[in-house]
Amino acid sequence: MNGSMPKYQQVARQLGDKLRLGVLTEGDKLPSVRMLSQELGVSINTVQQAYYCLEAEGLVEARPQSGYYARTLIDRMDTVPHRSEPQAMAHQTSLSDQESVLRRRVRQQQEPGWLPLSLGVPAPELLPVKKLSKALQQAQRELPHGGIEYEQMTGNQALRRQIARYALFWGSQLTDEEIITTEGCTAALTLCLKTVTRPGDTVAVESPVYFGILQTILSLGLKVLELPTDPLTGVDLDVLERHLQVGQVQACLLVPSFSNPLGCCMPATHKQRLVRLMERYQIPLIEDDLYGDLHFAPDRPLPCKAFDRQGLVLWCGSFSKTLAPGYRVGWVAPGRYYEALFQIKRYQGGFSPGLTQQAVANFLANDRYELHLRRLRQRLKGNCQRYQQTIRTYFPEGTRISEPQGGFTLWVEVDARINTLALADQLAVYKISILPGSVFSLQPQYGNCMRLSYGMPFNERVAWGLQTIGQLIHQQLAV
Amino acid sequence: MNGSMPKYQQVARQLGDKLRLGVLTEGDKLPSVRMLSQELGVSINTVQQAYYCLEAEGLVEARPQSGYYARTLIDRMDTVPHRSEPQAMAHQTSLSDQESVLRRRVRQQQEPGWLPLSLGVPAPELLPVKKLSKALQQAQRELPHGGIEYEQMTGNQALRRQIARYALFWGSQLTDEEIITTEGCTAALTLCLKTVTRPGDTVAVESPVYFGILQTILSLGLKVLELPTDPLTGVDLDVLERHLQVGQVQACLLVPSFSNPLGCCMPATHKQRLVRLMERYQIPLIEDDLYGDLHFAPDRPLPCKAFDRQGLVLWCGSFSKTLAPGYRVGWVAPGRYYEALFQIKRYQGGFSPGLTQQAVANFLANDRYELHLRRLRQRLKGNCQRYQQTIRTYFPEGTRISEPQGGFTLWVEVDARINTLALADQLAVYKISILPGSVFSLQPQYGNCMRLSYGMPFNERVAWGLQTIGQLIHQQLAV
Repeated sequence: MNGSMPKYQQVARQLGDKLRLGVLTEGDKLPSVRMLSQELGVSINTVQQAYYCLEAEGLVEARPQSGYYARTLIDRMDTVPHRSEPQAMAHQTSLSDQESVLRRRVRQQQEPGWLPLSLGVPAPELLPVKKLSKALQQAQRELPHGGIEYEQMTGNQALRRQIARYALFWGSQLTDEEIITTEGCTAALTLCLKTVTRPGDTVAVESPVYFGILQTILSLGLKVLELPTDPLTGVDLDVLERHLQVGQVQACLLVPSFSNPLGCCMPATHKQRLVRLMERYQIPLIEDDLYGDLHFAPDRPLPCKAFDRQGLVLWCGSFSKTLAPGYRVGWVAPGRYYEALFQIKRYQGGFSPGLTQQAVANFLANDRYELHLRRLRQRLKGNCQRYQQTIRTYFPEGTRISEPQGGFTLWVEVDARINTLALADQLAVYKISILPGSVFSLQPQYGNCMRLSYGMPFNERVAWGLQTIGQLIHQQLAV
Repeated sequence: MNGSMPKYQQVARQLGDKLRLGVLTEGDKLPSVRMLSQELGVSINTVQQAYYCLEAEGLVEARPQSGYYARTLIDRMDTVPHRSEPQAMAHQTSLSDQESVLRRRVRQQQEPGWLPLSLGVPAPELLPVKKLSKALQQAQRELPHGGIEYEQMTGNQALRRQIARYALFWGSQLTDEEIITTEGCTAALTLCLKTVTRPGDTVAVESPVYFGILQTILSLGLKVLELPTDPLTGVDLDVLERHLQVGQVQACLLVPSFSNPLGCCMPATHKQRLVRLMERYQIPLIEDDLYGDLHFAPDRPLPCKAFDRQGLVLWCGSFSKTLAPGYRVGWVAPGRYYEALFQIKRYQGGFSPGLTQQAVANFLANDRYELHLRRLRQRLKGNCQRYQQTIRTYFPEGTRISEPQGGFTLWVEVDARINTLALADQLAVYKISILPGSVFSLQPQYGNCMRLSYGMPFNERVAWGLQTIGQLIHQQLAV
């Protein structure tokens, strides 16, 4: 795969690794473009492009007349949202308050004329609509009797093969026999939870955490333990370990790469340590890798599954955020839980049609998926920067904005006096929909936070929307 | 609807009702063709056709030189399988024995060269493959962005409307707002069970009962209570009532119209009484109406939902047995449990793609579905008679064969010395797959029964298959 990666990306990755691993830290000056070009035997242009990449990732900053410097963690910590500090207690609260909020937002964002900053998917114009339609028609021709017959219960085989092939990027040795397709990622997570927990068990999650995950866990009669989470590096593993030590956690459900809403990515070393913890305490890790393909750095981050030696990681993914939300095609590689999980799936229904699965398989069978992802990532990364910039322009000073390393959501923390639940209601007058922070936790927190999606291409209307939010906040602070 | 029904069917229905309601009973001579034609003011031909219908339904028999007679219940009881007498105890046994059998059969029936008498769907050649393919392509053009966007969580609206319209046949006042689509009927049943039961509860079912229903109930941590079941009229309501009286049943899951494997249909009066029982004891009835459209009598039987005044009936159906098993399109009208059920569906994933739903909606939007069903029913009814006849020819005397009033499965009870589990293994040598009776119960019974599907058009190979089964049975009895 490296062979086909442009030179500048290879250079960016090499430097990025050094920065991420701490070989270069806190304010170190990086080699000049000319020096590095000689050292590596690549063109000046290549090095320059690599530095642009790193700058976009927030890893380096250009200082005029001086060159590139490693951005200090402290620099970044001043501007990103605070590390979360949820209570160290498992919760099983009802979600009824959050739900009425969510229902209203979901209803609104579907109505015409609304600016759906609460959106949970990339906008359709970023997705390969026509090519997928063709892939579906091809599937009709390929499947026996036009696809009206039952698909295999473990899922369409062509698709399972493609998923296995696709997993090679992290050195996976998974075969199609170890993969089960599901109708989207929530269905995969539900199956995993049913397989590895019993009602009353506690599941550890990030905090803030996607409300859908909270709803799924609670609806199965389970408790939620929210972990302190760093907006750049993910959950605090020391805290998790303390909970594991006292037997307080029966399963982890994490989004290690670009969690929703924070967009943070656990460094590979953290992921490895996480899996070792799972091994020590023999606890299953349900890895929601739904956003892993939407990375802004040159390389796709490794999933935790890459470090799994004992089959304790249930690796879940989906094409809902990268190809076609409506096709309902996801998967799980459940490791040692394969048999138990498959049995539940078999007995409780929930099979997606063979046609949509085969269509996705067709799309993956050549390089179309990789090409599409490259374009999608570029556009999302561009969106992200423009949204961030606009927020910085219009929101009051002191606003903290997440620095997602992938995905399509921003987490914005504003002055503690602002109640984003009320703000969301006020914004409804302008037909702007946002998600208030309070729905991302079972605890009373994040009341001054909001999730803004940058899944829509940036345009004047988006700018107006962000400006309007900023103005309302300014007004409230002035009272 | 009656207006469009051919005259002879109207006459057949009228007479059939009298027979079913007991106005004409046990050996009564029916009016001669000529007399009835004068009395009703219809042609002789019409009355003759009506009598043919009733004969095919097993309700009347022609006696040479004498005319038509109401077939006595005793006549029929001599030839259909015995009324089942399961133990009056709830079971939660493991299904592991049954499962290895089922897996083997399922694997076999998919292999080329096998005669799949164990099949659980009508053969693809009976389904409208090409028209559905076109309906799917139409759906691609109709849905925004080719159907890649999320479908509504309650299901595709066009489809829900069509289901509501289609339910008008029983005087339904359901609106699309009261229907939730599901990915097939098993998913609907699972949702219903999750909604109305808690682990440890007992669910009453027919006996013999489709093994998939047993698996679903058990996998949710529930107990199964098998009810005595008449091969012509369904479950014994007196026995059910006694269980209800002592609070032993928390939900019923029944297939009142053409249960699988018996193919029996509860008379409308029984259905009404069943719903009244549910009302008296405030117990939910999960009605699996998966086969209701495959009736052999002129009219579609009323579902229990038609008698539901309190929203206690969760009416489930699907297009898997009539249109496209692989499209995974089913539905539930959950009555008073709507909110609770929808919440579980929402939180635990399991949405079918909008495309396949819209395709089915397109197919239903004009009269294509009714036309297709008419043809499908005719062919299944014809299959049924030829299969029955062939079994009667080749199986030993004393063999009891069910008289399905719809659906596509026969239940065959042979000499008590025959073990159909062993027989199924012997038949594997001939590449003939059947389902042994023992998988249709959690109790040790039906060891001398088997389910034979007549979903495949009758042909020489089928005749050979049935003959081979008969020969093996003969051989074993001769030892």
